[in-house]
Amino acid sequence: MRNFEFYNPVRIIFGKGRIAKLSGLIPQNANILLTYGGGSIKRNGIYDQVIAALKGFNVIEFGGIEANPHYETLMKGVEQIKAHKIDFLLAVGGGSVLDGTKFMAAAALWEGSDPWEILSRRNEVSVSVAIPVGTVLTLPATGSEMNGGAVVTRWETKDKLAFSSEKVMPLFSILDPEVVFSLPQRQVANGIADAFIHTMEQYLTYPVNAPVQDKFAESLLTTLIDEGPKVLANRTDYDAAANFMWAATMALNGIIGVGVPQDWASHMIGHELTALHGIDHGRTLCIILPGVMRVKRTNKEAKILQYGERVWKITEGTTAEKIDAIIAKTVDFFESLGIGTKLSDYGIGAEIIPTIIGRFENRGIKAFGERGDVTLEEIAKILELQLK
Amino acid sequence: MRNFEFYNPVRIIFGKGRIAKLSGLIPQNANILLTYGGGSIKRNGIYDQVIAALKGFNVIEFGGIEANPHYETLMKGVEQIKAHKIDFLLAVGGGSVLDGTKFMAAAALWEGSDPWEILSRRNEVSVSVAIPVGTVLTLPATGSEMNGGAVVTRWETKDKLAFSSEKVMPLFSILDPEVVFSLPQRQVANGIADAFIHTMEQYLTYPVNAPVQDKFAESLLTTLIDEGPKVLANRTDYDAAANFMWAATMALNGIIGVGVPQDWASHMIGHELTALHGIDHGRTLCIILPGVMRVKRTNKEAKILQYGERVWKITEGTTAEKIDAIIAKTVDFFESLGIGTKLSDYGIGAEIIPTIIGRFENRGIKAFGERGDVTLEEIAKILELQLK
Repeated sequence: MRNFEFYNPVRIIFGKGRIAKLSGLIPQNANILLTYGGGSIKRNGIYDQVIAALKGFNVIEFGGIEANPHYETLMKGVEQIKAHKIDFLLAVGGGSVLDGTKFMAAAALWEGSDPWEILSRRNEVSVSVAIPVGTVLTLPATGSEMNGGAVVTRWETKDKLAFSSEKVMPLFSILDPEVVFSLPQRQVANGIADAFIHTMEQYLTYPVNAPVQDKFAESLLTTLIDEGPKVLANRTDYDAAANFMWAATMALNGIIGVGVPQDWASHMIGHELTALHGIDHGRTLCIILPGVMRVKRTNKEAKILQYGERVWKITEGTTAEKIDAIIAKTVDFFESLGIGTKLSDYGIGAEIIPTIIGRFENRGIKAFGERGDVTLEEIAKILELQLK
Repeated sequence: MRNFEFYNPVRIIFGKGRIAKLSGLIPQNANILLTYGGGSIKRNGIYDQVIAALKGFNVIEFGGIEANPHYETLMKGVEQIKAHKIDFLLAVGGGSVLDGTKFMAAAALWEGSDPWEILSRRNEVSVSVAIPVGTVLTLPATGSEMNGGAVVTRWETKDKLAFSSEKVMPLFSILDPEVVFSLPQRQVANGIADAFIHTMEQYLTYPVNAPVQDKFAESLLTTLIDEGPKVLANRTDYDAAANFMWAATMALNGIIGVGVPQDWASHMIGHELTALHGIDHGRTLCIILPGVMRVKRTNKEAKILQYGERVWKITEGTTAEKIDAIIAKTVDFFESLGIGTKLSDYGIGAEIIPTIIGRFENRGIKAFGERGDVTLEEIAKILELQLK
């Protein structure tokens, strides 16, 4: 096991009817900016529950945060924060609303010349202060409710970039599994895929003798495989919704990723498909991960075989046959969620390859992966294998 | 899954050579009380590493905290805290030193008439403020390094009582697996047993459809079964020590216990054996848990079978045969660590039974267990089954 640091002070309030607890979690006399997305919270009753729980607080609203939140939109939120002397941000939504709100929390107090630096120069600068954030999660998927990460898209240039800071970890997150009851099929499928692939990216590398982390990751994968289809089949199965929700949160709160190598290549390549073609984030991962497994089947052999044996019970055949079967099982799982795993499923052809490679070149990126050997050449191969 | 709240802000610094990071973790200009036990840290070099890392800080020492820390001793520490205007406690030791220091942190600022109330009236009073605590763990076992719990013994009356508060959760804990290298066999065995049984007490109850928590618990159990003997056989196997250490911390930091029923009967009965006869805490659990499994084999049937199948691969035979085999496997594991699982192994006879029952009666205790049905009568039966 490698040396590591783990710190996660997010208070999780999990279960039925917990939104009513909000008033006890937010500092008294706070000036709150209530952030949300396209308004689904007004249709499913969550907005009403939140407003009822915030009685007595001064609340300004900032709706309209889009999927893959736009820097341009979020900077309008920052203006609202400054104009109304906001000192608490309450994000009610899925990963996009949460990520966008975290960025606003840091951008509002940013002392550099341009808050875009938080993203564009994330390896050189760090966030030293942010407005406190609390969240009410409405879509299990990204894990943003229990970590310090956020991904923001600059619409003007189609750059989709991430940053991470302890300062924007939510003070609390309310996780009520009943929010799942009103989610559309597509969002549930995306959420299952997103959580599954977060787990894979912290797991499918090479062994470093870390059995707790490995087994925890496998626990999340099998839980998502078992519970995900139940949620899709019966949206009001509370237990399935609760297990899906908790697995998605545990998939990216740091616990499974401590002390082990990680490979975020699927995310980094997938972000480009979202930025360029607006494909849902979870779906981009289902396109790219199988390609990464194919191209890196030798480097990742030990972990692919372990994953296949423990998660899919694949033990028969030669190594090559087993790896083929394991990749096929993984693809079948994504397809069973109703998610296409080929670029052609989204009307995208080979022209995407030089475009993405060119964009990485422009940013000075040379490679991804746990060994830093998923080079631009290999990225091109991954995309080519996933054409159709 | 049940509703739950989870909050654990302890910063974990894990790995080789991390004690040197101490100075960056403690507030500048802090007046530190350095607490430790019987002096083993002076023999194994940890004391020297800590003192070197604290160069420039004002440090007062308070050694001599015994196993099962005594209230009487800890109150002397509280006097030191007040006399020297201490504003940071650094505990360097195992669970006893950490627990004792947490109690001192709360007792020093206690506003009630008598700090003993923190323990004796734990269900009526709560700790609202405490001096910040940091820890350097020297013995993986109790999980105290990443939770808000502490157990203290009043020597005068032989009462061993627990309390729990977010306010005494360590600000940070340094976990360097190399501390295991110099531990005596007996302490390693106790630590493995303690972590194993913590896990069991949050797991071996009844199913509530919580697969993440169940599988995480099983992950820790199998890790302790695999890695524990490696540590016992070769104390300088760094990976085994690291896996044992991390499993022990994860066993009682809240993660596996959220949203599920728990049964702390083994701990509560075991504490009496320590208080009355000075038996090591981990050993008392190895005596009591098999008795709890025997007496509650029907109530716990579903979970015992799940544990047997997933942890010990026991799938053949009738239900009764399987449960017998599962209990035998569990006992064999404890015995393989060199730990006796019968009261006669410690020279204790049937006279202990009325003594313990009488002490529970005096405290107004009627029952333990996840259903509140481990009555005094059943406790007597548990002890009787474990006589020899």
